[in-house]
Amino acid sequence: MLGDLKREVYEANMLLPKNNLITFTWGNVSGIDRENGYIVIKPSGVEYEQLSPENMVVVDLEGKKVEGDLNPSSDTATHVELYKAFSNIKGIVHTHSPWAVSFAQAGRDIPAAGTTQADYFYGSIPVTRQMKKEEIEDEYEKQTGSVIIETFKKRQINPNQVPGVLVNDHGPFTWGDSPASAVYHAVVLERVAEMTYHTMQINPTSIEMSQDLLDKHYLRKHGKNAYYGQK
Amino acid sequence: MLGDLKREVYEANMLLPKNNLITFTWGNVSGIDRENGYIVIKPSGVEYEQLSPENMVVVDLEGKKVEGDLNPSSDTATHVELYKAFSNIKGIVHTHSPWAVSFAQAGRDIPAAGTTQADYFYGSIPVTRQMKKEEIEDEYEKQTGSVIIETFKKRQINPNQVPGVLVNDHGPFTWGDSPASAVYHAVVLERVAEMTYHTMQINPTSIEMSQDLLDKHYLRKHGKNAYYGQK
Amino acid sequence: MLGDLKREVYEANMLLPKNNLITFTWGNVSGIDRENGYIVIKPSGVEYEQLSPENMVVVDLEGKKVEGDLNPSSDTATHVELYKAFSNIKGIVHTHSPWAVSFAQAGRDIPAAGTTQADYFYGSIPVTRQMKKEEIEDEYEKQTGSVIIETFKKRQINPNQVPGVLVNDHGPFTWGDSPASAVYHAVVLERVAEMTYHTMQINPTSIEMSQDLLDKHYLRKHGKNAYYGQK
Amino acid sequence: MLGDLKREVYEANMLLPKNNLITFTWGNVSGIDRENGYIVIKPSGVEYEQLSPENMVVVDLEGKKVEGDLNPSSDTATHVELYKAFSNIKGIVHTHSPWAVSFAQAGRDIPAAGTTQADYFYGSIPVTRQMKKEEIEDEYEKQTGSVIIETFKKRQINPNQVPGVLVNDHGPFTWGDSPASAVYHAVVLERVAEMTYHTMQINPTSIEMSQDLLDKHYLRKHGKNAYYGQK
Repeated sequence: MLGDLKREVYEANMLLPKNNLITFTWGNVSGIDRENGYIVIKPSGVEYEQLSPENMVVVDLEGKKVEGDLNPSSDTATHVELYKAFSNIKGIVHTHSPWAVSFAQAGRDIPAAGTTQADYFYGSIPVTRQMKKEEIEDEYEKQTGSVIIETFKKRQINPNQVPGVLVNDHGPFTWGDSPASAVYHAVVLERVAEMTYHTMQINPTSIEMSQDLLDKHYLRKHGKNAYYGQK
Repeated sequence: MLGDLKREVYEANMLLPKNNLITFTWGNVSGIDRENGYIVIKPSGVEYEQLSPENMVVVDLEGKKVEGDLNPSSDTATHVELYKAFSNIKGIVHTHSPWAVSFAQAGRDIPAAGTTQADYFYGSIPVTRQMKKEEIEDEYEKQTGSVIIETFKKRQINPNQVPGVLVNDHGPFTWGDSPASAVYHAVVLERVAEMTYHTMQINPTSIEMSQDLLDKHYLRKHGKNAYYGQK
Repeated sequence: MLGDLKREVYEANMLLPKNNLITFTWGNVSGIDRENGYIVIKPSGVEYEQLSPENMVVVDLEGKKVEGDLNPSSDTATHVELYKAFSNIKGIVHTHSPWAVSFAQAGRDIPAAGTTQADYFYGSIPVTRQMKKEEIEDEYEKQTGSVIIETFKKRQINPNQVPGVLVNDHGPFTWGDSPASAVYHAVVLERVAEMTYHTMQINPTSIEMSQDLLDKHYLRKHGKNAYYGQK
Repeated sequence: MLGDLKREVYEANMLLPKNNLITFTWGNVSGIDRENGYIVIKPSGVEYEQLSPENMVVVDLEGKKVEGDLNPSSDTATHVELYKAFSNIKGIVHTHSPWAVSFAQAGRDIPAAGTTQADYFYGSIPVTRQMKKEEIEDEYEKQTGSVIIETFKKRQINPNQVPGVLVNDHGPFTWGDSPASAVYHAVVLERVAEMTYHTMQINPTSIEMSQDLLDKHYLRKHGKNAYYGQK
């Protein structure tokens, strides 16, 4: 069942330690088959060396396990919420990568300070509000998804153009049109967090890039008239 | 004698350089056999490449060498004090890992700023007070243990729920229910020190997470109703 | 065609990941054959493992492709402008190396704070002004070159003595008398950015080195009476 | 001639890249045979992969080449001055290691903030004053040695107890009773610079350790009654 997607999700998971985004088992990747609504996700608390395409877990859009011997990631309900709300995305990543977490713990957006961010994120990378007592106590992982979705709605951010978020006091989630693309965005987010942290220390007053430069870099890669790469 | 524990302590010692917690010989791991009260610990000042299960040193709960050709770690008396006072722990680690030492030298707790810490430490990671002249001059290593124990008592911190400490102007000690678990906590402590340092620079005013979120994360892994992983 | 230069440019490109200056495909090296005015440059958006001397792209000094199956780097027009204006240089590098980008995003020069910089850069490494709306919208990559050239002219900096620049809100370009020399300067720039960032945090008030020390270090390597190395 | 010392100096030089203290060729190690007053030192500007015991250069205490096909390190005159003034040392290291350079460029001592430093340096690691125009212009490398020696004399620091220094706006020199010991101190200096930098950011007001703790740690390793390790 879903052999290709399982391999894809497995390989995307293995990219996390390869890109130094992971300590121990602190991270997970999922992918979705939009036709039948099945999600493939990393099992919970299993070490990366022990992963295989075969032990990936299949759940449905209710978060119920459809196939697999192991429990799915404890963050499964967050992934499910995001897949339901953001209808174009096909892969999701969660990590505790250190620079991203530093901003998440500070409760601060990563502002768009340069072209590295602008090449993949069309603006600031938002941080969610802190979660409320009742959200934490009841269906916490599902509510984590809800607060992400709320952030994008309230601030009118398009999740297809800003493929990532910082969950307040927790860490980053990123997504994309495939599990591998979601990992790519996780790397970009971590790297811009690192660079913009240092930028903020050098120049604490004004680091936002111009809207013109943001438009240019995002759109030369992602707009109708994109001309970057070999397309 | 104690062949299994020696191997366990040896392997836990070798995890320190593997996890980049060690410069030269600056660190040590011990384990205890609670039935007979014997402690197995790294020999003093020996390079990691020259360690083997066989050259681990056995001492008793007075700190006296029971077996081994080499001198035990110079920090042995600290380990002994902690094993005597914290009756549930079975492994102890000491390192000079750089982010933890940075906080220890600053004389500051690592506040609970996010879920990475909350997953393993139920609150701030405390720093001890500075040691007094007489504590330093007489039985210094034993007194180092005493000041750790005093810190947990005075501040009413449960060492089973906060498995680590920063010794002021010195560095971290961590523990757990096995030598490997103590190393795991040493890695977590180093990683949260790194992230929370950066968080404090981004947001110098308020970085403490909510008690609700702290409860949630600690207890979903460690409480009666833990549901993380494959249990 | 230009087999030697293609190999040289290929090898210089491969030095970028080797020296940890690169994430994904974010960087490129070119070289020029000054006799016939042909430039060899990395193809756009191709991963480093897939590069070979054969897939390097040849363009002329108008930026038109002369040979090659792939599109040249999207930054080609910037390289062309620099080769036209700085007549002694034979290699150019662009990266998004993190410390250099941190200064570029902050819009700040890297001041000459010590001998490491003075050994290769005869003064501060300048940051360009921000680009204007019309420069961004029309021939952006070419205008990026122009704003670099303007910076050196207005501030009367000799590009042979200061072989690098930070493009505002973007990142570094470096150059040299060969592609390999341009990479060498990219490494130096990244390393001095890292060190001088920390220097600025330790001592926010005065970190400029003396003109005498700057003269000494630059000229003992690059002046008429250079005596460093085996020459 | 001096085959053993050449091997020792060669091997100590190779420890520099192994311990991540080196970019390109920016560093050198020497050793001295105190009986005949000959110094063995790295050749100038040669890459580490091309070093061998055979291409080490022999100079006398005037800095004149006694044996070797290559030029000695351009810093040879500094080494010579230090060997003449500090009569107990037998090995010297110079690097541009990044954390040490950050303090050197800031013109600041590395204060004794914790036991890691106290284990090897009996107090602050001093920075020299800036060099004067005439010192820079005439016999610069020899004068670099002189200003180091002046620093230790004026501040009454014992070079046997504080085996390293930061040359203002330049970088660190360390020494020891062998070339390998000098490298060891270079690693310690770099590591404490890193940690104490972060300590200063967390706690900008008071980070000096107590004299009692400094005494204890330095003397338990280096005093008459040292009890660390296997001695």
